[in-house]
Amino acid sequence: MDVLQTVFWSLGSSRHVLASRLDCSRSKANALAAGLIEQGLLEETGLQASSGGRRPETLQLASGLGVVVGVDLGATSLDVAVMRPDLGVLARHSEDADVRDGPGVVLARVRDTMRELLARCGIPAKKVIGIGMGVPGPVDFASAQLVEPPLMPEWDSFSIREYLGEAFTAPVFVDNDVNLMALGELWRLQRSLQNFLVIKVGTGIGCGIVCHGEVYRGANGSAGDVGHICVDQAGPRCHCGNFGCVEAMAAAPAITRMAVDAAQAGESPALAAVLQANGRLTAVDVGQASRAGDAAANAIIQKAGSLIGQMLASVVNFFNPSHVFIGGGVTQIGPLFLASVRQSVYHRSLALSTRHLDIQYTPLGGQAGLVGAGALAMQESLRLHGSKA
Amino acid sequence: MDVLQTVFWSLGSSRHVLASRLDCSRSKANALAAGLIEQGLLEETGLQASSGGRRPETLQLASGLGVVVGVDLGATSLDVAVMRPDLGVLARHSEDADVRDGPGVVLARVRDTMRELLARCGIPAKKVIGIGMGVPGPVDFASAQLVEPPLMPEWDSFSIREYLGEAFTAPVFVDNDVNLMALGELWRLQRSLQNFLVIKVGTGIGCGIVCHGEVYRGANGSAGDVGHICVDQAGPRCHCGNFGCVEAMAAAPAITRMAVDAAQAGESPALAAVLQANGRLTAVDVGQASRAGDAAANAIIQKAGSLIGQMLASVVNFFNPSHVFIGGGVTQIGPLFLASVRQSVYHRSLALSTRHLDIQYTPLGGQAGLVGAGALAMQESLRLHGSKA
Repeated sequence: MDVLQTVFWSLGSSRHVLASRLDCSRSKANALAAGLIEQGLLEETGLQASSGGRRPETLQLASGLGVVVGVDLGATSLDVAVMRPDLGVLARHSEDADVRDGPGVVLARVRDTMRELLARCGIPAKKVIGIGMGVPGPVDFASAQLVEPPLMPEWDSFSIREYLGEAFTAPVFVDNDVNLMALGELWRLQRSLQNFLVIKVGTGIGCGIVCHGEVYRGANGSAGDVGHICVDQAGPRCHCGNFGCVEAMAAAPAITRMAVDAAQAGESPALAAVLQANGRLTAVDVGQASRAGDAAANAIIQKAGSLIGQMLASVVNFFNPSHVFIGGGVTQIGPLFLASVRQSVYHRSLALSTRHLDIQYTPLGGQAGLVGAGALAMQESLRLHGSKA
Repeated sequence: MDVLQTVFWSLGSSRHVLASRLDCSRSKANALAAGLIEQGLLEETGLQASSGGRRPETLQLASGLGVVVGVDLGATSLDVAVMRPDLGVLARHSEDADVRDGPGVVLARVRDTMRELLARCGIPAKKVIGIGMGVPGPVDFASAQLVEPPLMPEWDSFSIREYLGEAFTAPVFVDNDVNLMALGELWRLQRSLQNFLVIKVGTGIGCGIVCHGEVYRGANGSAGDVGHICVDQAGPRCHCGNFGCVEAMAAAPAITRMAVDAAQAGESPALAAVLQANGRLTAVDVGQASRAGDAAANAIIQKAGSLIGQMLASVVNFFNPSHVFIGGGVTQIGPLFLASVRQSVYHRSLALSTRHLDIQYTPLGGQAGLVGAGALAMQESLRLHGSKA
């Protein structure tokens, strides 16, 4: 029975809830907690001892444990945060990045950003107890290496762990970005949902799977690779070699391509104006045009949402999740996108699978990946710690 | 730590393996076993005490525990067996059935067959410790009731547990038929594979999912409902209301419909002859014509296999299983079917998902559902027993 792990996964829970999650009596739980408080691993919080001498109701991991660093690397963005053991953010930095620059360039930025953030907080590197990093490709979790990542081929089998290990002594854990979004939501939910999906729609389309209350990575770590599910046999060729993959037809690059086509064909004065002004169009531009009532922009968003919903319908029939959370850059495109996804799933999935199905944007929004990276660092560090003890 | 459950899931394993599965020392495991042998719950087997007085190496559940009954109800067939605690079959009976006759008619046959088989073995009904039953539709596992089953609407919310409970005192457990095929294979494998799928192709198409070493039923018990995944937007209308469902295009009724069309169109003298002789065609007839070199029959089998492979490709991209086992009546159609499924999956799934993917017919063959029904009865009876103790 791992008390620290249970406290980490029960943020803000009462001692009563904790005892029940540890499957022991409240007095036993209190005794275990007292020992860990004495060792400086746990601290009391919540209700302070009142005049009646009442015991504080909640426990948390002691801030003296150290900090974790979460890194969320997207295809075009980098997000780094230094976090307390309860994943409260002490310092955070975001910038544009391009994973195609290769691991040498990108990881040097990761390392330098980590150093800057730690310095800003006045925290020495040796106080970092774990580093969690999400990357936009399939990962072999044990070796912390990417395996044949289609968006970032130069990273294939590169040792992220070894690279960051030269600058930090803390253990390094790497996972697929959308697996970490799923882990982040699972942590936020304190495992109160057991079976749900997180879909990330950005440069690519991926899916994080929570099954029986745990993130599921599949036999080779490639579970959730839904971007190459076929939604139109007569569709365009995808970089994977097949035709009609949902990623080729509905991810951010496809949305901007449809927008450029609409602008150039004279179907959308709004998009044409932005294209002329900026020399390019983004999914956010399409969202803005849609909110301003542009019919072509609306049609593009509905088409992308509907294709993603068609893919999701297959996945929902197979997996019967209780919730589907949709995240990633494309969610900023606005509510019409979500409505189109929902309509397509409810139309195409079986009634029994969708009767209680909840489809919404990720509650953690753009933070999901970073929270997940922090949760990975904390969970795995505690696991290492536990197995050493 | 549940020793009986562990022994049940470790058929024929040595004491050494058992101790490691129980996560305790060999001497502790031997002490626990000795207590259960004394209570008549376990018995020793394998190597008999030799002149050197060596201790028998393997343990099994005592036959004095009683028997379980497994029932495998398909859309058109009924299979019932009385089994020892190690799932050795003591008596078995199979017959044609039609679930559309409704629960009253079908369950009366189930009950009478159980009585006949027990009488044949000379075993009184009170020695039955659990009844496991598979049915061809979505099941709410806790209530043991079918929920809106498309192939058997009269069964919706009918209490199978109550009906059989009038004739037998043993607890009744009901699950979807393909979930039980998955449980059967999991038991045969002693959980040595953690993440695999079982696809049943018969009157319908369903999928049993094993995730993290457990059968996964989904948020509403409808997980694995892959028959209504769309493989052709321009395909025919399915009974579910959508178009191009794989079940409508590649399950047994679609295969026989294609065969009748080929016979009537003069494309297959072999199938035309069988149709004239019998007044109907079955999937088995198509398989026989194929083996005799009939080109139309080969084309039908390849088309069905290819469509099922196309559905499976989506599922494999999402779930990344280590193995896919294919079972159900259509597997009797011959090796060309399996080859077509494989070709389609390997063509359409991502390389990483299929690099180590093994696709084969269910090793337990036509027994998988019955073994799974027995395993369900045994597992859940032991669980009830454990929670009472």
